[in-house]
Amino acid sequence: MKPHFSLIAALSAFAMLTPVHAQFAKPEDAVKYRKNSLFVMQQHWARVGAMAQGRVPFDAKAAQDNMDVVSTLAKLPWAAFTEGTDKGDTRAKAEIWKESAKFKEAADKFQAEVVKLNAAAKTGNLDNLKTAFGSAAPTCKACHDNFRKD
Amino acid sequence: MKPHFSLIAALSAFAMLTPVHAQFAKPEDAVKYRKNSLFVMQQHWARVGAMAQGRVPFDAKAAQDNMDVVSTLAKLPWAAFTEGTDKGDTRAKAEIWKESAKFKEAADKFQAEVVKLNAAAKTGNLDNLKTAFGSAAPTCKACHDNFRKD
Repeated sequence: MKPHFSLIAALSAFAMLTPVHAQFAKPEDAVKYRKNSLFVMQQHWARVGAMAQGRVPFDAKAAQDNMDVVSTLAKLPWAAFTEGTDKGDTRAKAEIWKESAKFKEAADKFQAEVVKLNAAAKTGNLDNLKTAFGSAAPTCKACHDNFRKD
Repeated sequence: MKPHFSLIAALSAFAMLTPVHAQFAKPEDAVKYRKNSLFVMQQHWARVGAMAQGRVPFDAKAAQDNMDVVSTLAKLPWAAFTEGTDKGDTRAKAEIWKESAKFKEAADKFQAEVVKLNAAAKTGNLDNLKTAFGSAAPTCKACHDNFRKD
């Protein structure tokens, strides 16, 4: 029976190693999750941007509501850039994993700007929104330029 | 100059007619938006479900965090079931538009259950979570059974 128990022990030890994509059933789900959360966020971001850039009339309530959604979603995608998810239906560059500290810094910078933009939206003042949006928008572009394939 | 001004007036009047998918640049974006928000929501929902059903250890903080995300996302998909978005890459049944009151009722029922499940998660008590999850889960299934193609 010894080999049998050894096998169980080995399997148990293996199961206790938390896989890096533990929160996702499979790597494809992680890719889908980050793309989907980024897309939904971008839709709400664009509605705020349209107001900040004067393309649609300013609606303080709508700006706040959209920034509430952006604030929740801005936290999500990063946990899904797990090891082994550089393949498949993704435009993620290898640099995300090769220069992970730089990628984290870019994601953190974006999230800090989202916090500021959310606070600006809550003031209900269009000038505040414009200023904060002008500061936040380049953090999207910076990350895309460095870490997303064209 | 008169015809010119008439044209401007006509175009202005046209611009004021709010298209039903006004929030989306094109119908495909509405389809993508609702699918993406539902997928991200489902991922967080499943993490709560795994705890409620005893498949993973209960973590009160994780349950609350996941329900915060679910609560935000649960409000989003419905505005994207706009007229003309029954085509393309979607499993949406025609009944969504033919029986729109029934669809709205199902969506509202689900959202009401999410509010209750969120409150249950905030108590930090696993039994509360189990009870609320048991009540909420069938509202997902009911809507899928009636309004989503297999």
